[in-house]
Amino acid sequence: MKTNPGRFFEDYRVGEVIRHAVPRTVSGGERALYHALYPARGALYSSDAFARASGLAASPMDDLIAFHTVFGKTVPDISLNAIANLGYAEGRWLRPVWPGDTIRSESEVIGVKENSNGKSGVVYVRTRGLNQHGEAVLEYVRWVMVRKRRDVPAPDPVVPHLQKAVAAADLVVPEGLDFTAYDFTLAGEPHRQRGYEIGEKIDHVDGVTVEEAEHMLATRLWQNTARVHFDVTAREDGRRLIYGGHVISLARALSFNGLANAQMIVALNAGAHANPCFAGDTVRAWSEVLDKAETSAPGVGALRLRLVAVKQGAAPFALKDGEGKYLPEVLLDLDYWALMPL
Amino acid sequence: MKTNPGRFFEDYRVGEVIRHAVPRTVSGGERALYHALYPARGALYSSDAFARASGLAASPMDDLIAFHTVFGKTVPDISLNAIANLGYAEGRWLRPVWPGDTIRSESEVIGVKENSNGKSGVVYVRTRGLNQHGEAVLEYVRWVMVRKRRDVPAPDPVVPHLQKAVAAADLVVPEGLDFTAYDFTLAGEPHRQRGYEIGEKIDHVDGVTVEEAEHMLATRLWQNTARVHFDVTAREDGRRLIYGGHVISLARALSFNGLANAQMIVALNAGAHANPCFAGDTVRAWSEVLDKAETSAPGVGALRLRLVAVKQGAAPFALKDGEGKYLPEVLLDLDYWALMPL
Amino acid sequence: MKTNPGRFFEDYRVGEVIRHAVPRTVSGGERALYHALYPARGALYSSDAFARASGLAASPMDDLIAFHTVFGKTVPDISLNAIANLGYAEGRWLRPVWPGDTIRSESEVIGVKENSNGKSGVVYVRTRGLNQHGEAVLEYVRWVMVRKRRDVPAPDPVVPHLQKAVAAADLVVPEGLDFTAYDFTLAGEPHRQRGYEIGEKIDHVDGVTVEEAEHMLATRLWQNTARVHFDVTAREDGRRLIYGGHVISLARALSFNGLANAQMIVALNAGAHANPCFAGDTVRAWSEVLDKAETSAPGVGALRLRLVAVKQGAAPFALKDGEGKYLPEVLLDLDYWALMPL
Repeated sequence: MKTNPGRFFEDYRVGEVIRHAVPRTVSGGERALYHALYPARGALYSSDAFARASGLAASPMDDLIAFHTVFGKTVPDISLNAIANLGYAEGRWLRPVWPGDTIRSESEVIGVKENSNGKSGVVYVRTRGLNQHGEAVLEYVRWVMVRKRRDVPAPDPVVPHLQKAVAAADLVVPEGLDFTAYDFTLAGEPHRQRGYEIGEKIDHVDGVTVEEAEHMLATRLWQNTARVHFDVTAREDGRRLIYGGHVISLARALSFNGLANAQMIVALNAGAHANPCFAGDTVRAWSEVLDKAETSAPGVGALRLRLVAVKQGAAPFALKDGEGKYLPEVLLDLDYWALMPL
Repeated sequence: MKTNPGRFFEDYRVGEVIRHAVPRTVSGGERALYHALYPARGALYSSDAFARASGLAASPMDDLIAFHTVFGKTVPDISLNAIANLGYAEGRWLRPVWPGDTIRSESEVIGVKENSNGKSGVVYVRTRGLNQHGEAVLEYVRWVMVRKRRDVPAPDPVVPHLQKAVAAADLVVPEGLDFTAYDFTLAGEPHRQRGYEIGEKIDHVDGVTVEEAEHMLATRLWQNTARVHFDVTAREDGRRLIYGGHVISLARALSFNGLANAQMIVALNAGAHANPCFAGDTVRAWSEVLDKAETSAPGVGALRLRLVAVKQGAAPFALKDGEGKYLPEVLLDLDYWALMPL
Repeated sequence: MKTNPGRFFEDYRVGEVIRHAVPRTVSGGERALYHALYPARGALYSSDAFARASGLAASPMDDLIAFHTVFGKTVPDISLNAIANLGYAEGRWLRPVWPGDTIRSESEVIGVKENSNGKSGVVYVRTRGLNQHGEAVLEYVRWVMVRKRRDVPAPDPVVPHLQKAVAAADLVVPEGLDFTAYDFTLAGEPHRQRGYEIGEKIDHVDGVTVEEAEHMLATRLWQNTARVHFDVTAREDGRRLIYGGHVISLARALSFNGLANAQMIVALNAGAHANPCFAGDTVRAWSEVLDKAETSAPGVGALRLRLVAVKQGAAPFALKDGEGKYLPEVLLDLDYWALMPL
């Protein structure tokens, strides 16, 4: 067999480091496509001039371009036979990705736990994205439920202890970042970090109806090869499942309207793809301020945000029902830290 | 409220200058997408080598990339609550946009006139696109009908006097442009400016059936955020209205077949989006030669053209009915100057 | 008539060289779009770092970007009035195309043969792609059936003698290419050229359901202007015919799964677009190893492959029926040489 069947639950060993295939050089082409695929308007990722006025050498690649690129490489080794993507934790952006950088990924298996049915199990990996200098640009923990293929005994369960959220003190601010001369008019909104209250909720107003061609272009761009996104014969219902990351980027871009100054994502605390998204769905978003922090960089604060993506039919600020289950119109519940002028 | 509700008629003051948000750096990525979205084949915007043989440092960004980028930034401040985009005038391209340039926009309010119904009014703005050096790259006047929100008295009406067309003497030819060594074979057609007659009409033959994914990719690329283009719930009929600029670019690209040497748009004299365009429509175009002029640059002439976009069902050279109303199959009626080898 | 009606059979003369219009500069934008349009993962065309470790200055543009760009330019002169694209032969990639290169095309008419019905004929051309230095980057022979327009006598038939396949000794390996330090993990699969057997068949597993927006974006990107790809009114059945090259690129990208190390296409021996492809079709691919060869470059071998694209409903390894006719589910039968680590 020359083709890759993907790994099954019994193929993972705690401590093993998997080097993922196909490094990728990113450039202005990926940036332009990102802006065509998502209504992204964050000034720092749109303008070299704005980024320079903020102390950076140029506009870096969008934080979620880095995430999708790193994530996409892990799919053939981690989630080709996954039943479900269960969660994210301890995600940190460690260094900007610049146009021209070449990104590769590697994952360490940090936990395995077979399910009681004996037919599947949960695999925990800590994934790192590395640039061409071998420097880490991003790391995060992800856990997925993976099928078993062979009838082998269950491994000793190892469940990693994961932080509920990245501590503010552990956030990495890009070298040189300085928001003391921040131009709020050019950025699009007047709101500083100190203008947001913990518990405040924002309805981001806008909506986007999703097309098949769009999510497939996006998912291929990140070299994510999971069949269910591309092949109508892959699922019994004949529908192509939209890559969860597409919904993350849509919701993040929609959140510009109300969070235009939440410029850079620096941590991913948690995330759940609550319900599947399909072409024809109209995606909207709302946010809740979860926490606030200062950083050591001049004028730079941090905001911890819950970002919720919903589809048509959702009530305002829809999230969970009385039993704590996500409502059927909720697509995504993401918890992240972003940098913002103080 | 953290989100931007947009401006209403009563929020505009004559003389006010609005600096629009989100500067944007454009690159080879935007160019490649432009060529994927529109059947653009103008040699000067396709080839560095051709542009150099024409006296330029390299191939600039397409003239309409400049237009859409500048225009898109004005949407949140000018047309978010617009009922209709009424017209354009006095548009001039002042300087090429080069890959790597960062573009921002600002608009001066030059007129306001409340409608007799007291519920809306017309706002006139002169918009300028500026590069990272603060140099103007493009300017044009646009007027839109905007809703009133509050019951306030009508302002004193100010209606600017606008030129019917940019005078040939006011056209700005890019520095260095020289068509004396123009390669007509590489450009695609043998026709010089002097081979066109005033009054001549050209049917551009080709047609393009438009898809939802395409016009949304394009409109997002220019950071144009008007809901009606993206969200099926925004209009009562559940249809996404195609951004008028998408039709401009489609028609201009289709006009290559017959106007391959009309290389650079340098003025926008007038324009009307005669009827809405929706996905599934098949767009065609025809042109009429309105005027001809020389320029001071070697070998460079100018042609004033009417560019008409129509959809399926249109008769040849369809435009208006007996009462001077646009026929229902007419999408666009644009009046512009282009540079062409003499 | 200012518009181009295309050439008809009687317009071709053996020995004539046609310089095709609209040179094109390609960049990281075209590369990013290529990766968004096709599930391409070949490491050499994805990563500057990988390409440098293989002895090249940087990652070249994908081999099929070169092919489509050169091919697209020939359409207005060669196949605008074509009834059918009959075949390819003697295709060789002669030099990498680098980001920033400007590509133009020219074709020599090497054969003409009128059909017995007197209404059409076969035209043979040898097309060359040239970069901005005038160096050939690609050449291939193509023959098409073209309509006659005027009732003129048949020309003396000239049918060129074409090689069944490019000889291994005639393959051109890019200067500097060296696979002795090849990283099989980063490339995605462990299989060397010597691990493939002549006659071996590989089912590439994955499938892609094609959308209208995708094939139109792709076809426009290569400035291929044939109406049938874009205009629902161009064919009686109201369907847009997908550019055959789109199927080539889809199948080649799908073949990564099993042929990840078949890094660079260096020759096109033959090709047939067996049946039309339409939006909604789900494309899959399989390959057969036809031949193997060494090259003079360190660690670099060559594999001759048959690449077959099929659509939904195809049996495993579907190709021809008992009478040698392509089965209706077969879209493409391509014969090419690729470079691979020995």
